[in-house]
Amino acid sequence: MQGAVRLGLVGFGTIGTGVIKLLQRNRALIASKVGVPIELVRVADIDLTRDRGVRLPHGVLVPDAAAILEDPNIDVVIELVGGTGAARRFVLEAIAAGKDVVTANKALLAHHGGEIFAAAERAGVEVGFEASVGGGIPIIRTLKEGLAADRCSAVYGIVNGTSNYILSRMSSEGGEFAAVLKAAQADGLAEADASFDVDGIDAAHKLALLIQLAFGVRVPLTAISAEGIRHISQIDMSFAREFGFAIKSLAIAKRQGDRIEARVHPTMVRRQHLLADVNGALNAIVVQSDALGASMYLGLGAGMMPTATAVLADVMAVARDRLHGSRGRVPPLGYPVRKQPRARVVPLDELESEYYLRFMVVDRPGVKENFGCGDATLTPASGVG
Amino acid sequence: MQGAVRLGLVGFGTIGTGVIKLLQRNRALIASKVGVPIELVRVADIDLTRDRGVRLPHGVLVPDAAAILEDPNIDVVIELVGGTGAARRFVLEAIAAGKDVVTANKALLAHHGGEIFAAAERAGVEVGFEASVGGGIPIIRTLKEGLAADRCSAVYGIVNGTSNYILSRMSSEGGEFAAVLKAAQADGLAEADASFDVDGIDAAHKLALLIQLAFGVRVPLTAISAEGIRHISQIDMSFAREFGFAIKSLAIAKRQGDRIEARVHPTMVRRQHLLADVNGALNAIVVQSDALGASMYLGLGAGMMPTATAVLADVMAVARDRLHGSRGRVPPLGYPVRKQPRARVVPLDELESEYYLRFMVVDRPGVKENFGCGDATLTPASGVG
Repeated sequence: MQGAVRLGLVGFGTIGTGVIKLLQRNRALIASKVGVPIELVRVADIDLTRDRGVRLPHGVLVPDAAAILEDPNIDVVIELVGGTGAARRFVLEAIAAGKDVVTANKALLAHHGGEIFAAAERAGVEVGFEASVGGGIPIIRTLKEGLAADRCSAVYGIVNGTSNYILSRMSSEGGEFAAVLKAAQADGLAEADASFDVDGIDAAHKLALLIQLAFGVRVPLTAISAEGIRHISQIDMSFAREFGFAIKSLAIAKRQGDRIEARVHPTMVRRQHLLADVNGALNAIVVQSDALGASMYLGLGAGMMPTATAVLADVMAVARDRLHGSRGRVPPLGYPVRKQPRARVVPLDELESEYYLRFMVVDRPGVKENFGCGDATLTPASGVG
Repeated sequence: MQGAVRLGLVGFGTIGTGVIKLLQRNRALIASKVGVPIELVRVADIDLTRDRGVRLPHGVLVPDAAAILEDPNIDVVIELVGGTGAARRFVLEAIAAGKDVVTANKALLAHHGGEIFAAAERAGVEVGFEASVGGGIPIIRTLKEGLAADRCSAVYGIVNGTSNYILSRMSSEGGEFAAVLKAAQADGLAEADASFDVDGIDAAHKLALLIQLAFGVRVPLTAISAEGIRHISQIDMSFAREFGFAIKSLAIAKRQGDRIEARVHPTMVRRQHLLADVNGALNAIVVQSDALGASMYLGLGAGMMPTATAVLADVMAVARDRLHGSRGRVPPLGYPVRKQPRARVVPLDELESEYYLRFMVVDRPGVKENFGCGDATLTPASGVG
């Protein structure tokens, strides 16, 4: 049993700052739960000068990730660089060096998860990625462990806070997409380049991970159709309102025999459905499983401190496994990646007519009481714009 | 590493039947995730003849729990006897014999959790109790592990499905409490003796557990005030509706410095709050924590199959720790029970005036957008009857 678990953090941006703040603030609480202290020994970032509002002891901040990846005294690497280039290299190098990895990088895992998870399982190290979907909502843990004994038939919800914020604001305050996006950018609530968020790409990345966790299969990322929210106008909003719907950007995956429905698009959600009331930067994910039925998980899906809670929860889990000599106790996806079949995605053409059928069904009495376990209350209606 | 994890189940009632069904149905899935099969080797129940709709191999069903507790080949004991008498003895005997325990028994843990958790930690065995709160919703796991790095300031919600079902039905269909309870009993949706459910006792037991998990402290069970729903009438319902509220039976706990607010009572919930739309047998628990903010967990809080998913999730976690030699990796409460201080409960008198203050505040514009992180949208108004 070791004396402390030692962290190296690569990428000192917003989330990294949150992780350091939370670790400093809750140091004693975390140590008391895990049994030993968790120490941040090194932080790597190209920018050594920017003031992020947290203090690091002299010598902790370095310009080069190699100082972390090559340091045998560092147990766990937190990757917060983002993107799929350098981040992939850092993660694979950390795994090769026998370090555990914690990351918030959904793009990386959506594109290179197969390679990374397989490398981690071979090396007997852990890869935690709770922060990659739903921010601080422990949805990854829930799918891997909480619902582990059940079979999921659907997973869907609001997984991009920026899109939801823009749609919520368009609905509550009026204003067309371009103006509302601009205001959100000015308020720091949307990235300068918001394309990943508002074009459904980020949501598709997250859906690719949710599918693997919920259904135990992998689908090609390129097969997930992603439609953004740029074309939604106030005319759509008022049309939706008039007929008792809210427009939400949903990521939707369902099992259809051996195939998987997988798509991101603006959706007409009946006003009585709980998802219709999920506004602002909140995320909410509904899981439909055979024995449990529908369950929903809701909270802030992004932001410095919410995301930091997920990163540190993963660090604590890794620390516990290190202390108890049980690394690899739960594989990254909850099952061995070598047992993961590939599945085909149902072509969108086959779904289109189905939507409208569901749309027709939704007004029957009593549907509201079911909270939306089935298609009837979800009422996915494509192409609301 | 052992070849299989062997279970003994004590108490072959509704939940026990669900556990056996789910284990039989998902045997291969579970084995593939955990790495070895999980085998049910013995079931003990006084009633050997009743047909529960599941088949057990000859010799598995026995009349005496001793055949499980004294069998050195049984690794894990699932306690589904209920109550605080024999169940306590069975659990303590299992722990003393070095077996891990999984239970759905909130009454037992609310009354004797201190003794049981301490015994388990001393013996180095695990006690899983995910099924005791929120049925299949993984709220225990979420508080122990998902939100482990954060500090919770409040936990509240709908934790008794029977009460929520009755209130929902009174609201949607009319009818006074006594008649609706009778109908629910006829439909098998309420126990013949519904007192634990409708008098707030079951919710108080659950709240006692949530407090320990969320705040790291223990309060005396007798200090949690529990007010049931028997006195709610249609006059209250229409009054609430007129002013934009729903009446929900909530369990509420908040940190107030060193003290804890802890109470169960019918509550006026503003229509826009997500909890107001949680109807029927659903449970929903809101956690307010410092870094994450508000998060909510929703699903079926009772019933054969939902509860069985939680029991088997615990069994899988125990099995993983057995296989990896990491039993005791996470203590029952997420932190060592010896580090758990006792806390005082804020007397109800001190809260009463505060309610009405909150009640006055709730109509301000913009409150809806916050989803109810703070008191303002929760609007606990005691004594609605």
